[in-house]
Amino acid sequence: MGVQFNVFKGSKTGEITESKGYRDPKSTEVIVKISHCGVCGSDEHFRHAEQGLGHEGIGIITEVGSSVHDLSKFRIGDRVGMSWFHKFCGYCKQCITGHQNKCVNSTYFGSADQDQGCFGTAVAWDVSALFKIPDEIASEDAGPLMCAGATVWSPLYDQGLLPGDRIGVIGIGGLGHLAIQFASKMGMEVVVFSSTEAKKQEAIAFGASEFHATSGVESLGGITKVDALLITTNVNPDLSLVPPADPSRRFLPVLAAGAKIFPLTISMEVLPFTPLALIGGFLSVIGSGLAPTASVRAMLNFAAKNGIKPQIEKFPMTQAGVTEAMQKLRDGKMRYRGVLVVPN
Amino acid sequence: MGVQFNVFKGSKTGEITESKGYRDPKSTEVIVKISHCGVCGSDEHFRHAEQGLGHEGIGIITEVGSSVHDLSKFRIGDRVGMSWFHKFCGYCKQCITGHQNKCVNSTYFGSADQDQGCFGTAVAWDVSALFKIPDEIASEDAGPLMCAGATVWSPLYDQGLLPGDRIGVIGIGGLGHLAIQFASKMGMEVVVFSSTEAKKQEAIAFGASEFHATSGVESLGGITKVDALLITTNVNPDLSLVPPADPSRRFLPVLAAGAKIFPLTISMEVLPFTPLALIGGFLSVIGSGLAPTASVRAMLNFAAKNGIKPQIEKFPMTQAGVTEAMQKLRDGKMRYRGVLVVPN
Repeated sequence: MGVQFNVFKGSKTGEITESKGYRDPKSTEVIVKISHCGVCGSDEHFRHAEQGLGHEGIGIITEVGSSVHDLSKFRIGDRVGMSWFHKFCGYCKQCITGHQNKCVNSTYFGSADQDQGCFGTAVAWDVSALFKIPDEIASEDAGPLMCAGATVWSPLYDQGLLPGDRIGVIGIGGLGHLAIQFASKMGMEVVVFSSTEAKKQEAIAFGASEFHATSGVESLGGITKVDALLITTNVNPDLSLVPPADPSRRFLPVLAAGAKIFPLTISMEVLPFTPLALIGGFLSVIGSGLAPTASVRAMLNFAAKNGIKPQIEKFPMTQAGVTEAMQKLRDGKMRYRGVLVVPN
Repeated sequence: MGVQFNVFKGSKTGEITESKGYRDPKSTEVIVKISHCGVCGSDEHFRHAEQGLGHEGIGIITEVGSSVHDLSKFRIGDRVGMSWFHKFCGYCKQCITGHQNKCVNSTYFGSADQDQGCFGTAVAWDVSALFKIPDEIASEDAGPLMCAGATVWSPLYDQGLLPGDRIGVIGIGGLGHLAIQFASKMGMEVVVFSSTEAKKQEAIAFGASEFHATSGVESLGGITKVDALLITTNVNPDLSLVPPADPSRRFLPVLAAGAKIFPLTISMEVLPFTPLALIGGFLSVIGSGLAPTASVRAMLNFAAKNGIKPQIEKFPMTQAGVTEAMQKLRDGKMRYRGVLVVPN
């Protein structure tokens, strides 16, 4: 058996290329025929590498490895989702304490399986990192939940935050527009910070309780403080207590005592803070990537029951479609998540 | 009644001055006749302010306000300790959930009561921020536990760390030498990082499992990773993933997945990190100052039962003694905590 597939990869020049590949499933793997894949900002980080892109894939299991029936409930015909992670080891301290996303032996997008990607027609995937998609969620909506959804869900669900807490969200994009929906449906007050008023009505429609345009403001003081801050933009706030060039980035006055700060966008820009500011405000800056396995399952179930879905723009899963979608995201014009659709 | 006291203050020139003051206890306050006070690096921050210094005070209650017997078990003659905080409100969200050290209405060293300080002969103190000293602890040893002790205790006790965990401690000074003792007696592996080998034998005697001199090293790789990192020096590690000038400050290779980083020294120096490093390592940088009330009580009890005490140098509680002790600390020559003693 096995599967022949097409895959869209980056390249040294940054041009998207289409190539072919073949995989037999290993004993713990399934073959998934891809139908949809979301387009994430992190794909851009690998556009100049010869690697299969795409890590928000949805598809149907068409073949199972020899151990899959003993290891899992996955069966041929199941509709499943795949994210950043390809495999969890299941035996490291992190795995056996329920923190699979911190698995020290995981394989993941960029670290392994560069010959395949969810921008393509099929992948082989380990069952440890595979998720069943609830029937209520359309495949085109499920894709973006696998990475963007899990990324904003985990801080809200896994870090001791509570209904009624005030959640600041900086930025309304692929991540931010899902964060607003999840937090709102969890009974939290959602306080959105965006550079301009342009997305205000949409933010309110997604569930924001408050909206603050920050561009050009002299100070962010006067806003009732937030218990958590989800940073979903590439521009980091300034937590240094040292006067910065741009006062609209000084978020310290907005943070309640003990507030938790989550930089969620994978950024190489230094996020400046000083121990004085951190200790004085009892602030924590918490690195959080995707979500543990149980948390991803809870997220998918919560989204299904509460009608949470991304606002998407569809593109064909072709070389031109991938190129166009990635360009639109790069230009900051995607509203709010691109989804590639494999032609029937 | 009330009390007349002498107090040692900072001044515009940085010279230590002696002045007199008077206090009647408010209804919720006691008068404490000071016998000892530790000398902390944070006193230095106020040496140029006209403010009573000292926030590691020990003494005997000599008078109680009208409500003290209804509010507390404190009685005249009790030996008590005082730290950074002068009063907790008892009704804010943080107080009623057991996080008094995050109280949004607290008064504290530098914010209030500038006319008095524990570098002096007596203070008025609210019972909400007062601690009974166990009989097993000598007063001269108890002082440094109130600030330095509580500061290193709380990360170890209140943040989910466990016996058997590996605890990195950067720096062996007033804070570091207590952190090593506490962590060791809690059954943790203590991994000490110091610039040179000079304090190695003492660190081992305090309970360190490993000692690593960092000055001039090309890389900190190869050390078994730590689950937490307590930073007790003024020089911050570099968590930016951007090559720094000094590779001995690059602590990322030492940090286990999910490691918790505690900058404990009140520093205005930016602690550089990038979201990529934080997310990739699932690291948290946690602002922690002193400890909640229950935690301070547990710390004092634990120190009493386990014979944990600071290594101290004594100075007289006089203008010359305060000046000399602060100078020695400033010169980095204190081994490891100065304690001022009120002459009989």
